[in-house]
Amino acid sequence: MSATKKKIFIVVMDGLGDRGCKELNGLTPLQATDTPNLDWFTKNGIAGTCDTVDIGIRPGSDTSHLSILGYDPLEVYTGRGPFEAAGIGLIGKYGDVAFRCNFSTCDSDLNITDRRAGRIDKPDTTELVKALSGMTIDGVEVIIKEGTEHRAALILRGKGLSPDVTDVDSHDLGPLNKAKGKTKEAEFTANVINKFVKESYKRLKDHPVNKRRVKEGLLPANIIVPRGAGDFPNIQPFPEKYDLKAACVAGVGMIKGICAICGLDVIDLPPSCTGGYNSDFIAKAKVAMETLKTYDFILMNVKAPDVCGHDRDPIRKCEVVKRLDQMAGYIKDNFRDDLVIVFTADHSTPCSLGDHSGDPVPIAVYTPGNVMDEAVKFSESGCSRGRIGRIRGKYIVQMCMDLAERTEKFGA
Amino acid sequence: MSATKKKIFIVVMDGLGDRGCKELNGLTPLQATDTPNLDWFTKNGIAGTCDTVDIGIRPGSDTSHLSILGYDPLEVYTGRGPFEAAGIGLIGKYGDVAFRCNFSTCDSDLNITDRRAGRIDKPDTTELVKALSGMTIDGVEVIIKEGTEHRAALILRGKGLSPDVTDVDSHDLGPLNKAKGKTKEAEFTANVINKFVKESYKRLKDHPVNKRRVKEGLLPANIIVPRGAGDFPNIQPFPEKYDLKAACVAGVGMIKGICAICGLDVIDLPPSCTGGYNSDFIAKAKVAMETLKTYDFILMNVKAPDVCGHDRDPIRKCEVVKRLDQMAGYIKDNFRDDLVIVFTADHSTPCSLGDHSGDPVPIAVYTPGNVMDEAVKFSESGCSRGRIGRIRGKYIVQMCMDLAERTEKFGA
Repeated sequence: MSATKKKIFIVVMDGLGDRGCKELNGLTPLQATDTPNLDWFTKNGIAGTCDTVDIGIRPGSDTSHLSILGYDPLEVYTGRGPFEAAGIGLIGKYGDVAFRCNFSTCDSDLNITDRRAGRIDKPDTTELVKALSGMTIDGVEVIIKEGTEHRAALILRGKGLSPDVTDVDSHDLGPLNKAKGKTKEAEFTANVINKFVKESYKRLKDHPVNKRRVKEGLLPANIIVPRGAGDFPNIQPFPEKYDLKAACVAGVGMIKGICAICGLDVIDLPPSCTGGYNSDFIAKAKVAMETLKTYDFILMNVKAPDVCGHDRDPIRKCEVVKRLDQMAGYIKDNFRDDLVIVFTADHSTPCSLGDHSGDPVPIAVYTPGNVMDEAVKFSESGCSRGRIGRIRGKYIVQMCMDLAERTEKFGA
Repeated sequence: MSATKKKIFIVVMDGLGDRGCKELNGLTPLQATDTPNLDWFTKNGIAGTCDTVDIGIRPGSDTSHLSILGYDPLEVYTGRGPFEAAGIGLIGKYGDVAFRCNFSTCDSDLNITDRRAGRIDKPDTTELVKALSGMTIDGVEVIIKEGTEHRAALILRGKGLSPDVTDVDSHDLGPLNKAKGKTKEAEFTANVINKFVKESYKRLKDHPVNKRRVKEGLLPANIIVPRGAGDFPNIQPFPEKYDLKAACVAGVGMIKGICAICGLDVIDLPPSCTGGYNSDFIAKAKVAMETLKTYDFILMNVKAPDVCGHDRDPIRKCEVVKRLDQMAGYIKDNFRDDLVIVFTADHSTPCSLGDHSGDPVPIAVYTPGNVMDEAVKFSESGCSRGRIGRIRGKYIVQMCMDLAERTEKFGA
């Protein structure tokens, strides 16, 4: 066995898979676009198709990235709450309970008069959140962070917490609900969250930001209203599970959040990496290649193809594919021989659908000295000629670990 | 997400898969026959191979159809009894216990003198069954129905029943066995079935049909002898599981029975659809296409290729393949764009074997606007070039549900 352990670089081209598009004569954007660099990796490597979660399952970005990182979301996924919290940078851990929240407007009897406080946004919310920081209720630490517009996320951290509590948010105007425990053990958590809601009103009602807003004819955000409790998944941190120093290179909050929950370091990106369709892919790849000098594993996410799928824009998706191929060219030109590289997607986002689908995605894996199979074109159809066959996403890391000469022999 | 939910049409060509036949220069009937219409669906759709139950498992018609309907027979299959009962139209439900039975001849001490009552058949058995209808023993409802020749099926319906009872049938002439409970809880069921056997003698011994038979020199069928107890599987009804209005179009009793157990409606067929090798396939497809106007899901079974396999007749199987292709042509000419169609088989019935084998079967799935892959020929080998890869039967419905835009997103 060689002593040269290789590094692993997974390039997730978000929502890249597609179905036949009328505008492309029944071809997919990948089928319709010339991709010499992606094809080079496919031709010189191994290829296949991948159901990130399982056959026919339409994955979210959270469940699919968990899979690509080697976790089975059918086992570890605990719902949107904790991943949305992580998405705005509030990274909890097992035992924490996360809530989605609104900044709302209420009267002095705590009757809601506007659920979104007039769609308040940063920097006001950032100021208001400061007034709520460092709070402890019945021994439970309360951590809150603002999101986009009126949205925020909340984490309770302490002993004896449970996510089995009903929403304070009545999803309507008028009186708030009182959070209730769905189980006996959850009553403590319900009690803490009810106390927090009252305390938020106490701290926010006369806050200078709100006084200014009222003066300006804007609605004050004088209460925080939580909903959608969920606990953080109990997962073994990725670096420990695989003995890899691991990082994520991504522009989108939710992807960074998922990776952070899994224990990956989140690498800062230059402002040209926007996460939008016009993001600078090569700049992002440069950051990833640079980071690989000191890390063993990188998951890089490029969001742009998904955006085109949601926008039902196959022509723009083809342009994005062309630029992704240029990015692949940059990686090829700067390739390090101690690298196992994976090109794949987290799910398909067919332009005809405008949303994620359960169609399997193409995958190509290249490392010098591996087998060359019969797949030559990086596309939904072309990759299916390869020897990877049809696999589930949760096997990708394990397969790469073996190619990276990092696995233990099972047996003698 | 598009609001256009599609319908799903699964065409099961029973026992279609084969192995190389000497008579066909080492080709399979599918490889040796020109099938332009099946090939059209393959070329314009996606293809693969399918192990209906699992790799190397020789499926029965019951286990394979359970798989194709999305159930894992390794989890839900409870033995032949309930499916044979269902096959003759006796559709039980979870909690019922089914038995296979013989009409037999016995003397006045209940010693069996002919296990098959001289191979009695309808209409005599139909008359005799009437004398046994509406019976209740210790609060348990007893339902009996005649099958082919001396065969019948029996269902016990009531509280506290168990399938863990030994056979009354000794499988020999002479005294009957007494059914015994293999567990303490099963003793009640054993007792009920023993009482039933005695009661059947009481009601049948002087029945006019038997008097007539004796007069004609035929053996009387004066007792019912049960064996092979089994309970009905505890499965979530298909229409509820997938939220689909579902029906089955099949000529063979057992297939209709399996589908009925899974909660599918069974559609009547014209007499030209015999279930035999000379059945009118196009008439059957017409019924299916008509039924699709008011249903969301159809499973259609065409038995003929299986018959040829059992008869070890590859030449006739080629003829059947040709006619199946004409049927596919009819479907192509009358195709509705809101349809996801699947062409596959429940298992292989190689002519060289004369029985089912565990060889994977070809599968092609077509719906407008899906990916076109590199498979072009509908055959055991041709379909394996496609992007479906090698899947298990239980994933077929889930895959179609996604193509039909009927799945929920898992995650955010």
